[in-house]
Amino acid sequence: MEKAIVLLSGGLDSATCLAAARRDGFETYALSFDYGQRHHAELEAARQVAAALGARDHRVFRLDLAQWGGSALTDTSLEVPDAEASHGIPITYVPARNLVFLALAGAWAEALGARDIFIGVNSVDYSGYPDCRAPFIAAFAEALRLGTRAADDNWQWHIHTPLQNLDKSEIIRLGNELGVDYAMTVSCYRLDDGGRACGSCASCELRRAGFRKAGVPDPTRYR
Amino acid sequence: MEKAIVLLSGGLDSATCLAAARRDGFETYALSFDYGQRHHAELEAARQVAAALGARDHRVFRLDLAQWGGSALTDTSLEVPDAEASHGIPITYVPARNLVFLALAGAWAEALGARDIFIGVNSVDYSGYPDCRAPFIAAFAEALRLGTRAADDNWQWHIHTPLQNLDKSEIIRLGNELGVDYAMTVSCYRLDDGGRACGSCASCELRRAGFRKAGVPDPTRYR
Repeated sequence: MEKAIVLLSGGLDSATCLAAARRDGFETYALSFDYGQRHHAELEAARQVAAALGARDHRVFRLDLAQWGGSALTDTSLEVPDAEASHGIPITYVPARNLVFLALAGAWAEALGARDIFIGVNSVDYSGYPDCRAPFIAAFAEALRLGTRAADDNWQWHIHTPLQNLDKSEIIRLGNELGVDYAMTVSCYRLDDGGRACGSCASCELRRAGFRKAGVPDPTRYR
Repeated sequence: MEKAIVLLSGGLDSATCLAAARRDGFETYALSFDYGQRHHAELEAARQVAAALGARDHRVFRLDLAQWGGSALTDTSLEVPDAEASHGIPITYVPARNLVFLALAGAWAEALGARDIFIGVNSVDYSGYPDCRAPFIAAFAEALRLGTRAADDNWQWHIHTPLQNLDKSEIIRLGNELGVDYAMTVSCYRLDDGGRACGSCASCELRRAGFRKAGVPDPTRYR
């Protein structure tokens, strides 16, 4: 069985991506990051999802991206706005986050002898984050190839983005078919202390509309 | 004054690179990594070099690349061989290390509003590490552009590699002109507890031969 690293945030997309990697026949190694995000509920969700979807291993890698600020997701002095206030690259963008995460996935993969990495980026509903778009993923794959043993040993990395061209409702339908329990996942940027979603940030709005359009019951606990 | 991030390991090359960034008129932000390497003497060296060369800020970023092994530099169960034993990609290669380090430099740069990153890679004497070669650096710059605000705001990152085409003796002559005190720097893969170099690993041999060829007195403390 081939090994694959799967980036797992604890959100809806990455949980679906992990299920897709299993569907595709990979032995999965889930990688989450404790990077200074506001809500540790995400990491607890990632643990549950990794266990439920049979990941062979799950690591929570610690790195302090909050130390230099630059995002409302890591800087508690910045407020996360309601969905309608977003234009251009939003305040919730964390500088170069997916680049850092993919680089570390590549490092683990190389140490493990894996050549496949899964990431749940998508850009149908929303492409405000540059590091979620297909051209970035393709450029990253080339940098990874040239910067690792692949360059000398003449093989290719495969960065799988099974959700790239799906909208939120299609992602939910796919995960539903693959047995993802979305009650375990969290999407809200403004969770309360009890782990309940706000229902009105950009991430909540997208998620709520996705369940509605998919015709799948929404298990999210709203406050 | 434009800001630049400079990757600073505490070795001879990165110290020279920091001096070159200052020569080029940048306000420098030095970035070192506590990544599970064998010798903390490197980080102490980096602190001294950053202070001596007037870095505006110096961060030591912690991340545990040793947790998944794969290199003699982070895995103490693997022995670092003498210079002559190296063929192909050596055992001291740390999987995707420069990719991870450059990604984090990009993250800090973006948070800081900098568009310039300096890294002291070179591939004249030695190109056994794929992540020290020019094609990798060019591919990384493109991935960084496409994955950050640069993609939307239409500007370019500059990844400066002032040492890329210099051999070790030319690097030493350059640093000597720019006032680098090489007594502060460490290169040895097998330092002893007193911070003295072994004199016979690949890194020591290259350094020693470089001083000899440059005609510059070698301040390294050998045991």
